Amino acid sequence: MIATIAIDSAACPVHIGPELLEGVRDFIDAELSDVDRILLIADGRVLEHHGARLRGFVGVPVHVLPSGEVAKSLRQLELALAACADEGLSRSSVIVSLGGGATSDLAGLTASLFKRGLRVVHIATSLLAQVDASIGGKTAINLPAGKNLAGTFHAPTAIFADTSILRTVSPLDWRAGLGEVVKTALIAGEAQLAFVEQNVDAILERDLDVVADLVRRCVEAKGAVVTEDPFEEGPRRVLNLGHTFAHAIEFAAGYTGIAHGVAVACGIGLALEAAQEIDLLEDADLPKRVNRLFGRLGLPRTILELRSPMRPLAPSVLMRAFEHDKKGRFGEPRFVLPKAVGRFDLSVKLDGELLEHLLR
Amino acid sequence: MIATIAIDSAACPVHIGPELLEGVRDFIDAELSDVDRILLIADGRVLEHHGARLRGFVGVPVHVLPSGEVAKSLRQLELALAACADEGLSRSSVIVSLGGGATSDLAGLTASLFKRGLRVVHIATSLLAQVDASIGGKTAINLPAGKNLAGTFHAPTAIFADTSILRTVSPLDWRAGLGEVVKTALIAGEAQLAFVEQNVDAILERDLDVVADLVRRCVEAKGAVVTEDPFEEGPRRVLNLGHTFAHAIEFAAGYTGIAHGVAVACGIGLALEAAQEIDLLEDADLPKRVNRLFGRLGLPRTILELRSPMRPLAPSVLMRAFEHDKKGRFGEPRFVLPKAVGRFDLSVKLDGELLEHLLR
Repeated sequence: MIATIAIDSAACPVHIGPELLEGVRDFIDAELSDVDRILLIADGRVLEHHGARLRGFVGVPVHVLPSGEVAKSLRQLELALAACADEGLSRSSVIVSLGGGATSDLAGLTASLFKRGLRVVHIATSLLAQVDASIGGKTAINLPAGKNLAGTFHAPTAIFADTSILRTVSPLDWRAGLGEVVKTALIAGEAQLAFVEQNVDAILERDLDVVADLVRRCVEAKGAVVTEDPFEEGPRRVLNLGHTFAHAIEFAAGYTGIAHGVAVACGIGLALEAAQEIDLLEDADLPKRVNRLFGRLGLPRTILELRSPMRPLAPSVLMRAFEHDKKGRFGEPRFVLPKAVGRFDLSVKLDGELLEHLLR
Repeated sequence: MIATIAIDSAACPVHIGPELLEGVRDFIDAELSDVDRILLIADGRVLEHHGARLRGFVGVPVHVLPSGEVAKSLRQLELALAACADEGLSRSSVIVSLGGGATSDLAGLTASLFKRGLRVVHIATSLLAQVDASIGGKTAINLPAGKNLAGTFHAPTAIFADTSILRTVSPLDWRAGLGEVVKTALIAGEAQLAFVEQNVDAILERDLDVVADLVRRCVEAKGAVVTEDPFEEGPRRVLNLGHTFAHAIEFAAGYTGIAHGVAVACGIGLALEAAQEIDLLEDADLPKRVNRLFGRLGLPRTILELRSPMRPLAPSVLMRAFEHDKKGRFGEPRFVLPKAVGRFDLSVKLDGELLEHLLR
């Protein structure tokens, strides 16, 4: 076991280490001494399994969200805002989120809107939320037309990444988090990608020392990108590697059955293939290398692995989802494609024929 | 007639003058040359009367809002976001709002949320929107628990205050706007208050030269406050003069029948009375002076003038509405009270007994 690491990333302290849940209340009382009220917004399933570990939260009101992406609806936003009003939150209050990326997205949006902005503290309980979703202040809900189409930038006041909780995460959610881990490693550069490759066994065993080190590396890498460009006006777009494909896949799957990180892994595979097809790729071995890593981590290497008769992920539906890619104009999606580890083209236009070929 | 005045206020150009509607499209084409699509979000009644004046808007999609405060609901936000998606807006698009304060509040919130932020241009068509609501970037919807309880800060890209349109505003809406005019004058200082007093007749006749001058003065005064404190962390609170009372009155009236600016006038009267009661007031003649001005402008001088058997504005309901005052903790509203023209205490706690006395 390693001790807690507290790092500053994107102007927000991120606490990483085992058994942190117990200390969240102490942190709030000590560091945010002007807080008048707390509202816990929690994934119901996480709350059931880990809520008792939140020392000092007896009597704190709880607003429960459904597990997973279904939490990111306008209806859930309405219920969460009503809870803020019912519990008498003021601008001196703090919302504490407990859950994965969907929870922090919805709780963060609620915090940014109620009375035009309360503080939010994220307790990230999934690997994906710890390495990616909780960092950087993006909040969102989904609209019928596409994923994350409405949201804000609202930096959290603190983030807690309790690594011991990761022991209890389902194998599927674990794999999903690894999709974002590989994405972040590809962006951070050779050293981080090599770290992941060299520690695959320890990662799969969820060795908490290695996992804490991994989370820290991801937080630092993403934090550096976000600090440079908090509102995604330029360089931050690199974090969307694989995401235009991933959002389309999740949209086509009706936001159920395919975890975000798994879709991201598939999206990275597609981005590598696209880069190869248009001769952008300079490191010709990269697709094979990433492919091998995905295989060892249990992540999909092609879209075929995600398809089933019940989930056809039809190219026509995927193409439609691209229309609302936030990086481009309507109907002109822009893709982040890799040239090599750590080097990307952030705004590639791909023609329709190539896209349909890739998605077949 | 005076020519168009273009002033920079809170980092946003505000165009003030007669017959500006015709030039909005030219402005967008010239100044925002990267815009890919435009969505007009318009108050249906204003659109009907003035839409034809929007030269170059043929073929621009329109999303229609109901007139007045009812536009500021989560349901209307949902419909507006869906319109953004349906019309294929991207981050390069611009939303143009056409209407009063409720329209710019809802359109501004929609713009700040869709794809995490599009540009918005406000065409402010009511006096209240021209002198106050469109300036400063606050957006909001109402929640069942209270007025403006969910929203963002999202600065517009440009504001058009077409003064000729003010000739067509209903007498009630005109008076409502004058409530915010007096508020701004009290904040701006003696010169501006004297300007209003000296020009009452011209204002009531809607002399467009005087009105344009009045709008400019208000925009400059509010713009200066907002520029100093864009996120209302301190000095901007002064703009809430009369508003804690006003929001409670509007809440108690079910957001119908009492225009915001009329409620603000009543709120200013109550703030003056409160300041007198707690010996905060240094300028003992101020209540009488404001009272006289309100009388000449056709604005209410006491809450009794707003009460009717169908609209009792019961003290108990008003007291409940205070609980969610955004300047204080829950149940501890903070009032902006005047000491003299241009001088205020921004965070006064009033005890329950005094409040009930004032509201009787």
